[in-house]
Amino acid sequence: RVNGDRLWDSLMEMARIGPGVAGGNNRQTLTDADGEGRHLFKKWCDEAGLTMGVDKMGTMFMTRPGTDPDALPVYVGSHLDTQPTGGKFDGVLGVLSALEVVRSMNDLGIKTRHPIVVTNWANEEGARFAPAMLASGVFAGVHTLDYAYDRKDPEGKTYGEELKRIGWQGDEDVGARKMHAYFEYHIEQGPILEAEDRQIGVVTHCQGLWWLEFTLTGREAHTGSTPMAMRVNAGLAMSRIMEMVQTVAMENQPGAVGGVGQVFFSPNSRNVLPGKVVFTVDIRTPDLAKLNAMRARIEKEAAVICEALGVGCSVEAVGHFDPVTFDPVLVERVRKAAERLGYSHMNIISGAGHDACWAAKVAPATMVMCPCVGGLSHNEAEDISREWATAGADVLFHAVLETAEI
Amino acid sequence: RVNGDRLWDSLMEMARIGPGVAGGNNRQTLTDADGEGRHLFKKWCDEAGLTMGVDKMGTMFMTRPGTDPDALPVYVGSHLDTQPTGGKFDGVLGVLSALEVVRSMNDLGIKTRHPIVVTNWANEEGARFAPAMLASGVFAGVHTLDYAYDRKDPEGKTYGEELKRIGWQGDEDVGARKMHAYFEYHIEQGPILEAEDRQIGVVTHCQGLWWLEFTLTGREAHTGSTPMAMRVNAGLAMSRIMEMVQTVAMENQPGAVGGVGQVFFSPNSRNVLPGKVVFTVDIRTPDLAKLNAMRARIEKEAAVICEALGVGCSVEAVGHFDPVTFDPVLVERVRKAAERLGYSHMNIISGAGHDACWAAKVAPATMVMCPCVGGLSHNEAEDISREWATAGADVLFHAVLETAEI
Ligand SMILES: NC(=O)NCCC(=O)O
Ligand SMILES: NC(=O)NCCC(=O)O
Repeated sequence: RVNGDRLWDSLMEMARIGPGVAGGNNRQTLTDADGEGRHLFKKWCDEAGLTMGVDKMGTMFMTRPGTDPDALPVYVGSHLDTQPTGGKFDGVLGVLSALEVVRSMNDLGIKTRHPIVVTNWANEEGARFAPAMLASGVFAGVHTLDYAYDRKDPEGKTYGEELKRIGWQGDEDVGARKMHAYFEYHIEQGPILEAEDRQIGVVTHCQGLWWLEFTLTGREAHTGSTPMAMRVNAGLAMSRIMEMVQTVAMENQPGAVGGVGQVFFSPNSRNVLPGKVVFTVDIRTPDLAKLNAMRARIEKEAAVICEALGVGCSVEAVGHFDPVTFDPVLVERVRKAAERLGYSHMNIISGAGHDACWAAKVAPATMVMCPCVGGLSHNEAEDISREWATAGADVLFHAVLETAEI
Repeated sequence: RVNGDRLWDSLMEMARIGPGVAGGNNRQTLTDADGEGRHLFKKWCDEAGLTMGVDKMGTMFMTRPGTDPDALPVYVGSHLDTQPTGGKFDGVLGVLSALEVVRSMNDLGIKTRHPIVVTNWANEEGARFAPAMLASGVFAGVHTLDYAYDRKDPEGKTYGEELKRIGWQGDEDVGARKMHAYFEYHIEQGPILEAEDRQIGVVTHCQGLWWLEFTLTGREAHTGSTPMAMRVNAGLAMSRIMEMVQTVAMENQPGAVGGVGQVFFSPNSRNVLPGKVVFTVDIRTPDLAKLNAMRARIEKEAAVICEALGVGCSVEAVGHFDPVTFDPVLVERVRKAAERLGYSHMNIISGAGHDACWAAKVAPATMVMCPCVGGLSHNEAEDISREWATAGADVLFHAVLETAEI
């Protein structure tokens, strides 16, 4: 078993970097706080005897050598970046539990045939730079490095510039590494495990996603002196599209979600009808055909809504992954580990996207989940218990150990 | 008649300060560009022999003395501040035409019994600091100076701080001046005069306004892993309120408008359902009872919408004026001037708010309007012809001259 107290202490120490405003964290990708978090993590990895490699996307690979020079490493990781108003555990739990796995191996004097690489993927959240899971996406060959470097934050700064600025642009070619297997431990971010009173989620699938960025073009005009009949109201079109997305999601129950998290009005002045409205629709479901049908319906109905108002409508897909099926052998290994350790468990489909989804394209991959209070995540109030954190780390330890071979 | 070419040249010269991105202007209140515009205006006033007074709100009063030491001044003005993506004429036409009236009097060697005060009211637009017409509102006793100084822009900077920063906080007590009459010349900002092919709008009334700032409280949560049934979706509530405002405005036709120009999502991240949504509803109509009934209905229906979604809802009125009836004697004087000069004209109700609306509380007041192309304003493409500009300035000249008495 791992050292749950040490894991918890590390989680709390990391949470001091990039504090939020309500007990959580704001340690967004490639900010100074992200840089500071990386240095603390590196210090801990140094102390655990790991050696660092950093790739051109800024992903940190911290290696514990294996005994067989020909054996490919087992990768274990997640991300240290957070949402602007993020929790202390989303991602961080996975990275620091991977470190705890290695620390526990050191304590117990365990040597493995395969090296173990504790991994901190860059820009998982996608909050500052869309899409999410950007570095693992480049690693898996889904995006080019140029595409990734050109991603812009809302202020117009690019990923490439900001990566250099914080000093974490490595020299390794992205995706050059080959993996024996990939494991990721994460909080559920949803309500199921807590409601079903299970300690461990055995993650069999991840639902797919589309991020559809709408740009609506209306006519900037005075809110007071422009008669209703003369308005080309892009904001009204947006409101109708939002309601329509809700309808589409509800009509695809069970197992589908849809919503809008980001909206920009321009010029965003109280007495100006917006000339431009940009917002992103997020739709997800584990069923590929349903996912694409939802997208098609939303784009079609949005066009009709905009047409009726005379509003221009263009749509760009700024984020996407198909539903993922995780490696059945590794999934079984996670289940067996939970059983062996006496933790209650159940199969679960990940509602959120994870770096494991892209890693699954280039290696056998799977995940372990623990519950979170009230299913709440992407909220500073996100919370888990020390016992939940420890149980998942124990399961990760066993599954990794079995895969890395003693 | 005034010198239309000189007026036009001054308009074009002022438009070089705080250029926009599409041919218009971004010379928002208390920005450096606003300061620069004030200095240019002051230079012109100096050249015309006017003496300056500045009040504690930053309003500029440029006086041409009268021949009777006991006669109260006739005030003539508007505003030099603009929307973030504003036109070259909204407000500026009124200030520079007032200056042109004085320049023409100088040219013709005309002396008036009453002094004439060319006035540049501060923060008319309300784009950076709500409410609109802030300085004239303090002048008329509608707001206190403390209230005005505490108004915050979206970055949290206050009116008081910014006024000091640009160096335009005067020492005159706001509202200490007494007016014989107040005239304001403005572009219509709506489509009526152009559609009816009239050169002059004789402004009899101004419609009333409420700005209702809604703060909706949802629960920040992951867009992917939060089931539809568990969402407390403040963005969805906003979209329903926007649609409801549209319905309320349409059901109050003719003569009512309603819309939303400003929206803030928080944390405004693609994969986070917003925990907080702040947006401002703008409703207007010339009928006081209707205006207040619209407000009451919107607040009531918004509460029902939010209740159904479990979303918290609070509303603050951040801008308001009752419908205004302008002084019948001055209105008649404007009409007669248009007739005398041979300009086509019609009665019109101002769709936008103006400093004249607050001045009307403390003095006989009225306005003159000219058409604008396509009724477009609060848009960088806002446009008028040189002939329209001149016609209105001629009418202003005559009406002011008659009021100031030769
Ligand atoms: N786990 C997580 O929140 N990832 C961010 C990408 C997503 O929105 O699913
Ligand atoms: N004239 C003008 O645009 N004033 C701004 C205040 C308003 O929104 O009516």
